[in-house]
Amino acid sequence: MDYAATTPVDLRVLAAMKPYFSKKFGNASSLHSFGQEAKYAMEQARNSVADLIKAENSEIIFTSGGTEANNTAIKGIAFANKEKGKHIITSSIEHDAVLEPCDWLKKFGFEITVLPVDKYGLVDPLLVEKSIRKDTILVSVMMANNEIGTIQMIDEIGNICSSKNIPFHTDAVQAFGKLPIDVNKLNVDLLTASAHKLYGPKGVGCLFVRKGLKIDPLLHGGGHEFGLRSTTENVAGIVGFGAAVELRKKEMKPEAVKLTKMRDKLIKNILKIDHSHLNGHPSLRLPNNANFYFDFIEGESLIMHLDAKGIAASTGSACSSKDLEPSHVLLAIGLRHEQAHGSLRLTLGKYNTDADVKYISQVLPEVVDRLRKISPFK
Amino acid sequence: MDYAATTPVDLRVLAAMKPYFSKKFGNASSLHSFGQEAKYAMEQARNSVADLIKAENSEIIFTSGGTEANNTAIKGIAFANKEKGKHIITSSIEHDAVLEPCDWLKKFGFEITVLPVDKYGLVDPLLVEKSIRKDTILVSVMMANNEIGTIQMIDEIGNICSSKNIPFHTDAVQAFGKLPIDVNKLNVDLLTASAHKLYGPKGVGCLFVRKGLKIDPLLHGGGHEFGLRSTTENVAGIVGFGAAVELRKKEMKPEAVKLTKMRDKLIKNILKIDHSHLNGHPSLRLPNNANFYFDFIEGESLIMHLDAKGIAASTGSACSSKDLEPSHVLLAIGLRHEQAHGSLRLTLGKYNTDADVKYISQVLPEVVDRLRKISPFK
Repeated sequence: MDYAATTPVDLRVLAAMKPYFSKKFGNASSLHSFGQEAKYAMEQARNSVADLIKAENSEIIFTSGGTEANNTAIKGIAFANKEKGKHIITSSIEHDAVLEPCDWLKKFGFEITVLPVDKYGLVDPLLVEKSIRKDTILVSVMMANNEIGTIQMIDEIGNICSSKNIPFHTDAVQAFGKLPIDVNKLNVDLLTASAHKLYGPKGVGCLFVRKGLKIDPLLHGGGHEFGLRSTTENVAGIVGFGAAVELRKKEMKPEAVKLTKMRDKLIKNILKIDHSHLNGHPSLRLPNNANFYFDFIEGESLIMHLDAKGIAASTGSACSSKDLEPSHVLLAIGLRHEQAHGSLRLTLGKYNTDADVKYISQVLPEVVDRLRKISPFK
Repeated sequence: MDYAATTPVDLRVLAAMKPYFSKKFGNASSLHSFGQEAKYAMEQARNSVADLIKAENSEIIFTSGGTEANNTAIKGIAFANKEKGKHIITSSIEHDAVLEPCDWLKKFGFEITVLPVDKYGLVDPLLVEKSIRKDTILVSVMMANNEIGTIQMIDEIGNICSSKNIPFHTDAVQAFGKLPIDVNKLNVDLLTASAHKLYGPKGVGCLFVRKGLKIDPLLHGGGHEFGLRSTTENVAGIVGFGAAVELRKKEMKPEAVKLTKMRDKLIKNILKIDHSHLNGHPSLRLPNNANFYFDFIEGESLIMHLDAKGIAASTGSACSSKDLEPSHVLLAIGLRHEQAHGSLRLTLGKYNTDADVKYISQVLPEVVDRLRKISPFK
């Protein structure tokens, strides 16, 4: 129950990738037929990805994953437009891969406005509008939160940015392949996605960059990916990303229906536990996300005890799990330190069954009960 | 005959990677056992890579490839030490993944000294020494050139940099796994490697960063890879890199002997063609590299004609093959534009046989002859 951290590669995706390791192994930049064969496969994948979000092929830049895409979007826009202004707007519940690049840019004189969120984790679009200054060069607000699953009003924020002619970036790592996305309808100019969240391989993702945007590359070199991301292309990974996206086109909708039902059942069951609370929005949330906090207990112990029962879960983002600090997302929605420490994220995926929901609904109350008996917080 | 562009994944490497796609698919940062299983595999790979170059495990940062490692080394050192100085020394035959980041840094007030090379492509270590200024914060000279195969006197340059306390980076993408490397004996502080040049997968490489060096990350985020490269780790890719390195430990030496013999035979045969010339150093060169130019013909046509005969070759680096400009490496060793345009790189690998050498030795004179008959240059 930790599909937000990562997903297994779908066996059909792996089968699509396989020829590109040892047989069709050409460097996509080579002029000879081995190279051209690799290039063709890569361009087919680009077509799949672009099509999913209604982008043009030349607007999709393959990257090594979501973090690189976020870094490219933020630093790339910042460095290419610093003569125009040095102000960036983002939100307090962004992933570290957005917040940390923004923070680093302060070294270069950039000013970052970090917008607060409400108790559900929602950014107020009107607050975005009010925060835009003459020197604002970028707004970055994620599409759906990785911890609490809250889905932002991206269309409204997009409208505002578009009307003021400010580039709008959204980190869609958790939303891409789960929610329908149309970059034109949403007025999104830059969008981040990652393959390993949608049954594709780790080590590959993409950044959508709207045609005509002025942006510096993060990886300088031979000029690959329309000059925006130099490096020998990870052909097998890219082919896997494309194959995963093609599957999402068919499976996304029915899966969302199935997972929403399971999620709601899960939430209903878990909230029967005394002193348990749901984090995130009751309805504007990812179909696969449930996030709770339990008074008087500590999330990390919860994870360990669940692991011993064969259940994979997390306290928050896997990316900061080694960190002893409480989640910045949970603090941003108003939880106190000890509440944030008592949180549990359960995220469903296509291989989960009703039996899994039944099993955790049975195990979790016992574990919580046991931990509370030995809790120093109580 | 284009192994310098890329190599097929060794089937034993692919077998080692396979479980980490769909079975042991955990996020290496997750606390539960799925995550820890992935982390363990990744650390085993780190151990393999570190051991090959006599580094410590914590000095190996996995990246998405050579370009990212070079960008991290150059920009990372530059931005972390800009208060100390803004001068960087490199050479005229570096890969674009070194030259382009250096060039980009000029936007931030950095000054770049690009050292010339002799007719064999060698950087004079004394010239490095003379070029060091009080504000020099980095020297970057590649270990072996990707086009002409020339191996630099890295130990001498390392000695000089070490005695002056200047961080020394070497792009070892073509040398790593082909030549023995000891980062301590060579006094190298940063070293770049890429898995797909040594029968490992594309999309993974590493940067060796000597303990204690002050360096900024290129990818900011959750703090992975000792805080130096945030992003969900490409576990399968990293496992493949480790497996490829383990194979190199056994196979590197005998392969070098075999390939040197084949290379010398190839050079001997090809130079029998009238008006043909060897590019690069006669002895200080990679065991698998041969590079020629032929008067009166155009390299790109040569590639196409060889491709039609089933031979994969290149004019220069695959990374700039779409570029119509002649190779900056060949110009740097003193070739005229038309000579650089008439160049051919043949690079051998472990699946080449004597029959391949025989075949190309027979085909190439015919192709050269034919092209000369229709050449406008003649």
